[in-house]
Amino acid sequence: MRVLGVDPGLARTGVAVVEGEPGALRLVHAGCIDTLPGTPNPLRLTALFAALEGLVASHRPDAAAVEQLFFATNRTTAMRVGEARGVALCALARAGIEVTDYSPPQIKEAVAGYGGAGKPQVARMVRSLLGVERIAGPDDVTDACAVAICHHHHARVGRAAAGGRVAVNHGQNRLAAAVAAAQAREAVR
Amino acid sequence: MRVLGVDPGLARTGVAVVEGEPGALRLVHAGCIDTLPGTPNPLRLTALFAALEGLVASHRPDAAAVEQLFFATNRTTAMRVGEARGVALCALARAGIEVTDYSPPQIKEAVAGYGGAGKPQVARMVRSLLGVERIAGPDDVTDACAVAICHHHHARVGRAAAGGRVAVNHGQNRLAAAVAAAQAREAVR
Repeated sequence: MRVLGVDPGLARTGVAVVEGEPGALRLVHAGCIDTLPGTPNPLRLTALFAALEGLVASHRPDAAAVEQLFFATNRTTAMRVGEARGVALCALARAGIEVTDYSPPQIKEAVAGYGGAGKPQVARMVRSLLGVERIAGPDDVTDACAVAICHHHHARVGRAAAGGRVAVNHGQNRLAAAVAAAQAREAVR
Repeated sequence: MRVLGVDPGLARTGVAVVEGEPGALRLVHAGCIDTLPGTPNPLRLTALFAALEGLVASHRPDAAAVEQLFFATNRTTAMRVGEARGVALCALARAGIEVTDYSPPQIKEAVAGYGGAGKPQVARMVRSLLGVERIAGPDDVTDACAVAICHHHHARVGRAAAGGRVAVNHGQNRLAAAVAAAQAREAVR
């Protein structure tokens, strides 16, 4: 399975593509999407949308995992991160990718075995689980790797519970997206 | 000029298309986009995106005006509204529509002459300025009308300052959106 991990933000969104199975994970791509400060907000959001569409087209992930914002210094920051998160969720769902949200404690628990683990411990475990010596770039990239690893772990648990069947189904998600879109159009009164 | 006013929310987004000039405004369309509770968040956001794309295609507004969230009861609400706002801004900018944000006090000031005006006073002024006896539907629809009227007033002031030239330019916005998107793609390292 190939998972796209996303740590969304308006100025910088961390992204990572992690494939394989827990115990044998491989980092396919890691990086970040920067949008230009000084550009109007709607255009920065459009740029983020297009960059995520491009990533999905290049790497064709089976699923996406997005970090939930847990707290923010204030409501304006929460709103800005919310805008970027909304655009990320929408871009991925439109591309037919199933998207799952994970909270920071869930991610830390999956990666380091403890929901209150510190940043250095999480970073060490991410490198260890992916078998790499270092992950280039800012913290957001490591965070994107961590949420992708978290989804691999949760998906394995889900598959075990479902008797080995794989839950990912692009066609169904595309259909669900189309149905939801049609329903919203009908609701435009 | 034809302006699309948007009051964004995840469950319900108020929308209104108002055309003409201040003093002679006409309500072309008013309604709301409802997304289904119980549907996964990414699909609700996708539905909102598609419904806004549909509205732009049907009504071809020259500009869009979006209400800024001023306060929220808590950070979770701020985040959810932020997600819907981000999707709305992105959908409109991708369609090549210039988008302007207005705060609730700016909207009240433009519609009722006082930034601290109450909801009933704003609703009365919206009906009066649009020459309609009532606006069907929930408050969000009236709020969408109010932000559209607000943009008409600000655009008139802008045109007067620019010596009568109209600032709206779809081609330029499309180009700006494409450039911003390309820059973000290049920034994917």
